[in-house]
Amino acid sequence: MAAKKRIAILGASGYTGAELVRLLLPHPRVEIAILTADRKAGQSMAEVYPQFAGAALPKLVALDAVDWAKEALDLAFCALPHGTTQSVIKALIAAAPRTRVVDLSADFRLADVAAYARWYGHAHQAPELQKEAVYGLVEIHRRRIRAARLVANPGCYTTTAELPLIPLLKARAIDPAQIVIDAKSGVSGAGRAVKEAHLFTEVSEGIHAYGVGHHRHMAELDQEFSLAAGRPVVATFTPHLAPMNRGILATIYVQTRRKRSAEDLHAILEKAYAREHFVHVLPFGQVPQTRHVRGSNYAQIGVAADRVEGRAIICAVLDNLTKGAAGQAVQSMNLMLGFAETMGLLGRAVFP
Amino acid sequence: MAAKKRIAILGASGYTGAELVRLLLPHPRVEIAILTADRKAGQSMAEVYPQFAGAALPKLVALDAVDWAKEALDLAFCALPHGTTQSVIKALIAAAPRTRVVDLSADFRLADVAAYARWYGHAHQAPELQKEAVYGLVEIHRRRIRAARLVANPGCYTTTAELPLIPLLKARAIDPAQIVIDAKSGVSGAGRAVKEAHLFTEVSEGIHAYGVGHHRHMAELDQEFSLAAGRPVVATFTPHLAPMNRGILATIYVQTRRKRSAEDLHAILEKAYAREHFVHVLPFGQVPQTRHVRGSNYAQIGVAADRVEGRAIICAVLDNLTKGAAGQAVQSMNLMLGFAETMGLLGRAVFP
Amino acid sequence: MAAKKRIAILGASGYTGAELVRLLLPHPRVEIAILTADRKAGQSMAEVYPQFAGAALPKLVALDAVDWAKEALDLAFCALPHGTTQSVIKALIAAAPRTRVVDLSADFRLADVAAYARWYGHAHQAPELQKEAVYGLVEIHRRRIRAARLVANPGCYTTTAELPLIPLLKARAIDPAQIVIDAKSGVSGAGRAVKEAHLFTEVSEGIHAYGVGHHRHMAELDQEFSLAAGRPVVATFTPHLAPMNRGILATIYVQTRRKRSAEDLHAILEKAYAREHFVHVLPFGQVPQTRHVRGSNYAQIGVAADRVEGRAIICAVLDNLTKGAAGQAVQSMNLMLGFAETMGLLGRAVFP
Amino acid sequence: MAAKKRIAILGASGYTGAELVRLLLPHPRVEIAILTADRKAGQSMAEVYPQFAGAALPKLVALDAVDWAKEALDLAFCALPHGTTQSVIKALIAAAPRTRVVDLSADFRLADVAAYARWYGHAHQAPELQKEAVYGLVEIHRRRIRAARLVANPGCYTTTAELPLIPLLKARAIDPAQIVIDAKSGVSGAGRAVKEAHLFTEVSEGIHAYGVGHHRHMAELDQEFSLAAGRPVVATFTPHLAPMNRGILATIYVQTRRKRSAEDLHAILEKAYAREHFVHVLPFGQVPQTRHVRGSNYAQIGVAADRVEGRAIICAVLDNLTKGAAGQAVQSMNLMLGFAETMGLLGRAVFP
Repeated sequence: MAAKKRIAILGASGYTGAELVRLLLPHPRVEIAILTADRKAGQSMAEVYPQFAGAALPKLVALDAVDWAKEALDLAFCALPHGTTQSVIKALIAAAPRTRVVDLSADFRLADVAAYARWYGHAHQAPELQKEAVYGLVEIHRRRIRAARLVANPGCYTTTAELPLIPLLKARAIDPAQIVIDAKSGVSGAGRAVKEAHLFTEVSEGIHAYGVGHHRHMAELDQEFSLAAGRPVVATFTPHLAPMNRGILATIYVQTRRKRSAEDLHAILEKAYAREHFVHVLPFGQVPQTRHVRGSNYAQIGVAADRVEGRAIICAVLDNLTKGAAGQAVQSMNLMLGFAETMGLLGRAVFP
Repeated sequence: MAAKKRIAILGASGYTGAELVRLLLPHPRVEIAILTADRKAGQSMAEVYPQFAGAALPKLVALDAVDWAKEALDLAFCALPHGTTQSVIKALIAAAPRTRVVDLSADFRLADVAAYARWYGHAHQAPELQKEAVYGLVEIHRRRIRAARLVANPGCYTTTAELPLIPLLKARAIDPAQIVIDAKSGVSGAGRAVKEAHLFTEVSEGIHAYGVGHHRHMAELDQEFSLAAGRPVVATFTPHLAPMNRGILATIYVQTRRKRSAEDLHAILEKAYAREHFVHVLPFGQVPQTRHVRGSNYAQIGVAADRVEGRAIICAVLDNLTKGAAGQAVQSMNLMLGFAETMGLLGRAVFP
Repeated sequence: MAAKKRIAILGASGYTGAELVRLLLPHPRVEIAILTADRKAGQSMAEVYPQFAGAALPKLVALDAVDWAKEALDLAFCALPHGTTQSVIKALIAAAPRTRVVDLSADFRLADVAAYARWYGHAHQAPELQKEAVYGLVEIHRRRIRAARLVANPGCYTTTAELPLIPLLKARAIDPAQIVIDAKSGVSGAGRAVKEAHLFTEVSEGIHAYGVGHHRHMAELDQEFSLAAGRPVVATFTPHLAPMNRGILATIYVQTRRKRSAEDLHAILEKAYAREHFVHVLPFGQVPQTRHVRGSNYAQIGVAADRVEGRAIICAVLDNLTKGAAGQAVQSMNLMLGFAETMGLLGRAVFP
Repeated sequence: MAAKKRIAILGASGYTGAELVRLLLPHPRVEIAILTADRKAGQSMAEVYPQFAGAALPKLVALDAVDWAKEALDLAFCALPHGTTQSVIKALIAAAPRTRVVDLSADFRLADVAAYARWYGHAHQAPELQKEAVYGLVEIHRRRIRAARLVANPGCYTTTAELPLIPLLKARAIDPAQIVIDAKSGVSGAGRAVKEAHLFTEVSEGIHAYGVGHHRHMAELDQEFSLAAGRPVVATFTPHLAPMNRGILATIYVQTRRKRSAEDLHAILEKAYAREHFVHVLPFGQVPQTRHVRGSNYAQIGVAADRVEGRAIICAVLDNLTKGAAGQAVQSMNLMLGFAETMGLLGRAVFP
């Protein structure tokens, strides 16, 4: 049996961190060597997440207590909040240039330093790394991910919208000026941060939009859609909070080009994902449900015709913590470390 | 004190019927004289809906057991399934021409007999009543409702979309060819019919679209939007099932006309509803949540600018069983029987 | 029409405060004159709770800004956190001796100053008021409430357990040493305080016990059960958090005395509540559901026989924010101000 | 690599069947050779459960279409409804005596034919198999399971109650006449059968007891508790339906014997499960939450002292579909086929 690769999870006390532990604990080729969580340092993972009772895991340590050079890790997952991430990864890579990094924050997703500064209101603190980082949408950028030192794992909303739209934009099959993305997310996407707006009583038994017209995920969509279309694309995107733990559904309204029908769009997507293990395109006219990908790394896409001529409705679903975060990060890790891409990710949805 | 009006609820064992009972039981000017429910005939309402334990209500009777002429009711609410409704109301009105009717099914909502036949696949069984029926969207057709013998209570989805869109279409402020309505509904909208798709396990912890591209509510939207716009309007409409009991949120994407801004649309709606008790337009840029109208007859509308030039995003919410069904029906009843329009409907949302 | 009584709600930004506003807004005999909320002072109620959009309500003010003497209120509801309440009410009553008070905190529920000090770890700050305060379990202490200057509204858990158990203890029908109360509560019972444990993700899709063996509500149970039994009673009580907004279910296990059967217990309860409007005893063997009292001031009680000889199982339900808090407080207010006891409280459960 | 064992799942269209597929699909040593589902025969598993899109699985076939002798399966899981199961398994074993069977229905759980007849109202149809069947509570009957031809997988409620209580009864540490089990279950325990009582609207946002005093699971508890205690034991058991998909929490009230303390009970359980992989006893005083075992084969047990002298409160949790059904069945299969007991079952809870 091959030696296990040593990996670290930075920010293990957040939901994304916990999901990484869930996926990596039974992974046959890696060993979780380090778990950091500043405010919970000294505690066991089971104290913070009782589902890990009895598991052989290192204690949580503070980030500053780790000597990256000495640890000589094969790979570090960084699940820290936006902003602090830049300097942490900069320091980590400086100290341990052979440790590869998958970053799950938004910090390295925008390749354009000017776009970053515009959306986030300040200059990037590691601009050279920002340029080097590979956008980790695996089905689209697989080859570059394999060789990357730093992968910027895509956002959960953006993955959901990009999987169906990038092949259609590349094929010039839809009007890039007429894209409307109405996205609905479960609450775990907001993380474990304690806010009134995410109390059970404020989220259950109701639904609402938020960040209407100005959500930061739009920058990421602009980048990838424009790349795919070969021209600037600005889509309409509205996120909603739905009363469920996990899952994102993006209902996408598009206008076809060049007399393409909704069936044509479906055929393009079927072809694009025919050989992909984690992305399923449903039979034409069928729509997916988030519950059927719950807890799994799978995404499902459905395409239907609208009664309005030339308009199609596309529904895409994934689990925001898995394919939308930790699962896709592990998928990248598998590529970067030379494992089978699907290793440790074959679990199907926990439904019901 | 004025004598109480005698009313009947046909189909009291469904959720809409139960909601009518909830609203009418404490209503100061009416008396529930008859409750019908064919399969539950002989039972008390409290046996079917334990929340009515101890309430003074008539026993459930079979529809056929009621002598409409003899009962001489002031008003009957008809909450029966689509299809059977037509003949029931036809017979009722023939037997008791002075009994007024508010029908909560879809049977009398389409004024155009041809449109009805096209959408439902058969000729209407009471075409003369169909033409006479007044579409009961109170804020829009108030005057005609007051005098109506038969009111066709609008659907829950359609009320949610029509309240914000009709004033904008009337004002020629938006492009009628570019309307996208993405609607999310609670499960009570599906009624108490027993279907696998509505089991707790199949609905909770997930979200999905249904009836994509071909939902029957579209016929109603076409009628009212075309009337408002003065030209044929065909909107894109996608319903979704959200894991909650009550509430509809319609997120509506529109393109402004004649250089109108999103703020202009907001101003039009504010003006249109300035004197309405049950429709609140939130300050510009704010979006409503379904939970804040839960169990109430209120609707809330929010308008925000999209970052795409000339595009606005409108969110409208209501409770599908109240303002979207029984509440609006009672609002019509109040008008028809000469009561204050808000009587019995002043309860605010049960939140949390 | 009689002049409206002027009332205040202290602590209007909490869930109990909001529920008081919901119940009192359409109440025909009172006027909400003052709403306090220190951290939200200056805001409108609709900003804090959007369900009150458009309602004629005073702005939120800081507690210190109110001149109790000058306001000469008829009654004040105090929905402030435990601890601060004592001094606030002491000062209020000193300044305005004719203003009556219904306190919804735990501060005045224990008549015994020693018991208070033991359970809360410090001496009571208004011991003379503590002795004067009437425990506001309306169905049990109605006469004393009518004349009280200060009513201590019971806790939600305790009301649920006391309604079925007090009549049985009074009748000496059950063994006071063998009472087990397994209670399940919705999350709104925890208030709007922002805690990790009450995030949607931490509460939904799961259930758990808390405060096992040492919950403060036990002091209240001890007091009322002992009073009813005429001897010291110490019951076993375990609260649980269930993934729902509202509702408490207490499943109570008792051992009958003197060869009483479960049917005998049922008969005792039926008789005890035969004339009560808000407490319904279901037919023998039937059990109530919390959803059938949701948003209402009603409580329901069911009694069933266990297969173990001499053991009975009693289920009691109510809405923790209504009959378990604000509703019962309004019920007391109605008595104190000479209104019909049921005024403003006749709304039936919002179900589904 | 060893050849894969060929297994069948009878009744694959139910939730337990789907859970078996979820667990067995990535299992390294078995191949799902046959999936039966009478009403869905001819469909693919992905049509019935979209989470299996793309998976290599046999089509669903009718039970009668399978030739057991010819298939020569290594093991069959039987997830059919109670009643029909007896004759199906009898026929299967007659045709293929070397095919081992794990039955997930209640049909073979009672070793005593008289008890079976009493609880189910009719004689058992395969009494000789009933006697042979081994009760599949793995941690208690592991040795016999290994050699069994027919394993009767325990019920979900019973597993939850038996895991903590059997070691305490064996140790004579608690009074067998004073056991109260208050159990709360998620809705998936009711299966995919379409009933009004299990509609989303009838289950969400509320909680209630059912089957009070006379639930069939009691027969199983009696059998195992009496076996452990060495004398007849009749416990009080009340099941509740909680608004969640998965999970059972049993809150158990016990009286200690021979001056044992709650800590003593904790020590007994810690010792009993010290070497068990799937059962974790939490530190004294801590209580488990169902969400922390969601989707996993783990169970957690907590013990706390009651303030009533000599009384202890025990909370046990598991996932009703995994450790309470399919997971425990796979655990038995692993033993029966000579695999590592934990194979394919190491996934931790999907939380949040």
